[in-house]
Amino acid sequence: MEAGQNPNYQIPTRALSNVYYDEKSGLIKLGRSKQKRQFLNLGQAKKFMQSLLIAERIKWLLDQDKTLSIRQLFYTLKHTIGDTDENTFDTQDESNPLIEDVEVLINVLRENLGLIATPKGVLAGPIKIKDMKSGDLLDFTRMGSAGGAIPAIVEENVFQIKECSADYILVVEKYAVWNRLNEDRYWKKNNCLVMTGKGQPARAERRLLHRLSNELKIPVYIFTDMDPYGYYIYSVFKQGSINLAYFSEHSGVPSAKFLGFSVSDVKDFDMPKSSFIKMKDIDMKRLKEIQNYDWFKSRGWKKELEELKKFGYKIEQDALVAKSIEFTSNTYLPTKIDNKMWID
Amino acid sequence: MEAGQNPNYQIPTRALSNVYYDEKSGLIKLGRSKQKRQFLNLGQAKKFMQSLLIAERIKWLLDQDKTLSIRQLFYTLKHTIGDTDENTFDTQDESNPLIEDVEVLINVLRENLGLIATPKGVLAGPIKIKDMKSGDLLDFTRMGSAGGAIPAIVEENVFQIKECSADYILVVEKYAVWNRLNEDRYWKKNNCLVMTGKGQPARAERRLLHRLSNELKIPVYIFTDMDPYGYYIYSVFKQGSINLAYFSEHSGVPSAKFLGFSVSDVKDFDMPKSSFIKMKDIDMKRLKEIQNYDWFKSRGWKKELEELKKFGYKIEQDALVAKSIEFTSNTYLPTKIDNKMWID
Repeated sequence: MEAGQNPNYQIPTRALSNVYYDEKSGLIKLGRSKQKRQFLNLGQAKKFMQSLLIAERIKWLLDQDKTLSIRQLFYTLKHTIGDTDENTFDTQDESNPLIEDVEVLINVLRENLGLIATPKGVLAGPIKIKDMKSGDLLDFTRMGSAGGAIPAIVEENVFQIKECSADYILVVEKYAVWNRLNEDRYWKKNNCLVMTGKGQPARAERRLLHRLSNELKIPVYIFTDMDPYGYYIYSVFKQGSINLAYFSEHSGVPSAKFLGFSVSDVKDFDMPKSSFIKMKDIDMKRLKEIQNYDWFKSRGWKKELEELKKFGYKIEQDALVAKSIEFTSNTYLPTKIDNKMWID
Repeated sequence: MEAGQNPNYQIPTRALSNVYYDEKSGLIKLGRSKQKRQFLNLGQAKKFMQSLLIAERIKWLLDQDKTLSIRQLFYTLKHTIGDTDENTFDTQDESNPLIEDVEVLINVLRENLGLIATPKGVLAGPIKIKDMKSGDLLDFTRMGSAGGAIPAIVEENVFQIKECSADYILVVEKYAVWNRLNEDRYWKKNNCLVMTGKGQPARAERRLLHRLSNELKIPVYIFTDMDPYGYYIYSVFKQGSINLAYFSEHSGVPSAKFLGFSVSDVKDFDMPKSSFIKMKDIDMKRLKEIQNYDWFKSRGWKKELEELKKFGYKIEQDALVAKSIEFTSNTYLPTKIDNKMWID
C-alpha cells in the first residue's frame, strides 16, 4: 500500500468450471484456472481481509499445536470490529469457503493446518499405528468388537504406520456388514484390513485409505450395495468428488477395485428373489447421472450400469445374510477376490 | 389348536397411550396395558405368525452366538411362502415393530438377542474393559487421538468393566468438543471419563452410560449446546425417550446432571455477543414442546427454559473456544463442577 501498489494474491478457482476428471491419474482434480483477489476492490476487500484473518488464526492454531473444527475456528474469528456494528464474519457460510481457499492457496490440506472434520469409520486387522499426539501404539488386531476408531487427523506426522502384514484392504459400505466380518474374524482368516466409513465416508476415512494404499502398496477392494448410491461411494473413495476436488487429489485411490455387489453376482451367487428391491424413479435418475460421469465410462462400468438399468432392482450388501449368516465371509468375498471378479 | 383352543399371547402395549414419565424412578416407562394377539383372528393371524418367525430367527441367531442388524434379520426372514405369491414379510416396516414386541414380551433387550444398531460414540479415560467376544482388554487411556470406539453391544456378558478409577463421567454432545477435551488430556488431569454420542446418541452410548453409572456409582454430567435440541439430548440420556420407552427403563441415568451450557453461564463466563445465535420460530416451537414434557418440570428446568425464552438466543458449546482454546478444559468445566453449577 505504502509503495502505491494494490495488495493481491491469486488462488486456484474452486468452481465446477475448473474441476475435471484426469484420466491419466484416475483422479478428480482442480484445473489451472486462477482468480486474483485484491484489497483495493470494493467487491473483494471484505473477502481479502477475511482470508487474512483466517490465515492468522490458522497460524495461531499451529503455534499451539491444537486442533479445532471449522465451526470452532469460526467462533474464534467472529467478533465485532472496533466501535462499528460490523462483524468480521456473520455466518459460517462466509468462513468455510475461505478456509478452502487457504488450503488450495498454500497447497496444504486443512488436516495439516489443525482443522478437523468429524470422523465416522472403524478399522480392524493386522496393522500397528503409532499415534504421535498421545504416544499410544494402536494394535488394530486388539480392538475388540468395536474395532479401532479412525481419528479426525490421519496425517503422517500424527498417525504413523509402524507395521502391517495385510495382503489387501477391504472397504465395506455398511457398519452392519463390517460387524459381521469382524465377528467372523475375516481379517484374521484372510490376513487383511477391514474398514468401513459407515455409508458415505468422512474425510478421515478417505485420507486414511489413500495413505494405506500408497504406503503399503497392497490392493484395495470396495464392497457396497448394488445401487447408484453404493457405486457412488466406491467412486468417492477411488476418484474423489467434485465438491472437494482439491481434497480428492490427496485422498483418491485410483487402483481401488469394485468388488460388488454387482449385477452378475445375482446369478453367480443365486440370490433369492426376496432380496430384490424394485428401483424407483429417483434411483433411475441417479443411475443416469452416474452414467454421465467421466469416471464411470470404462468398459466394465458401462456394462454394469446398463445391466442394472435392465435388471431394474437394487440389492443391498446386507441381503447376503439371506444365503447364510457367514456367506459373505466364507463364500462371497473369497470367491470374488480369488477369481478377480471385480470392476475397474 | 388340537385341543380346540385359540393360540394367543399377551404383550405390553407399545403405544403412546401406554407410555408415562415415572417421577419416582425418574424414567420414561411403559405402562401396564397389554394387548392380546390371537392366531384365529383374521386381523391378527399374519402378525401372530410373523412374530413366531421372528422368535424362531432370534433363537437361531442366539444358537450361533452371532449378531445381525435388524435389517439383516429382515433379510433372513423374508421369503416367499411355498407355492404362493405371499411373502413372510414385504418391508422392514413389518418386522421392526414385531422385533420390539418380542423384546417387551420376553423382557429382554434386543442387544441380548444378538441384534445391533450402529453405534456412533467414543470414550476416553481411566477405565479397562474386557471384550469377551475377542478376549481383548481395552484400555481407554491408550486409545490415541480417536478415543476408544463404543461397540454395538455393551451388555455385561460381552463388555465387562474390569477396572475404573474415574471420579465422574462427562458426556459432551459434539465430537469437536470431545476432541478438544481429549487433546487437552482433560480426562487425565481431572481423573474422569469423557464420552460423546456425536449429537443424538445411538442405543449403545445410552446403554453404556447407564451401565457405567449403575456399576461405578460415580456422578454423570452432561454438557450440550444451549438450545432445545441440546436439552433434549440430555433428557434422552437421563430419562430416555417416548419412542423407545421400553429401552429407556434400561438405558436412562436418572442421577445425571445438566452441566451446561445454561443461560446463567452467559453472564457468569462473560460470553461475547458474537457467540449468540438468534432463535428462530422453529426453535421457539421446540422449546415450547420441551416445556410441556413432564420430565422438564423441576424448579431448575422451569427457570432455565423460561430464561432461554426471554434471552432469545442459542449458544453452542463450540462457542467457548472464542474465550480461549483451552477455556472449556481449564476454566468452564472445572468451575461448573467444583461449584455444583448444574441443573437437575
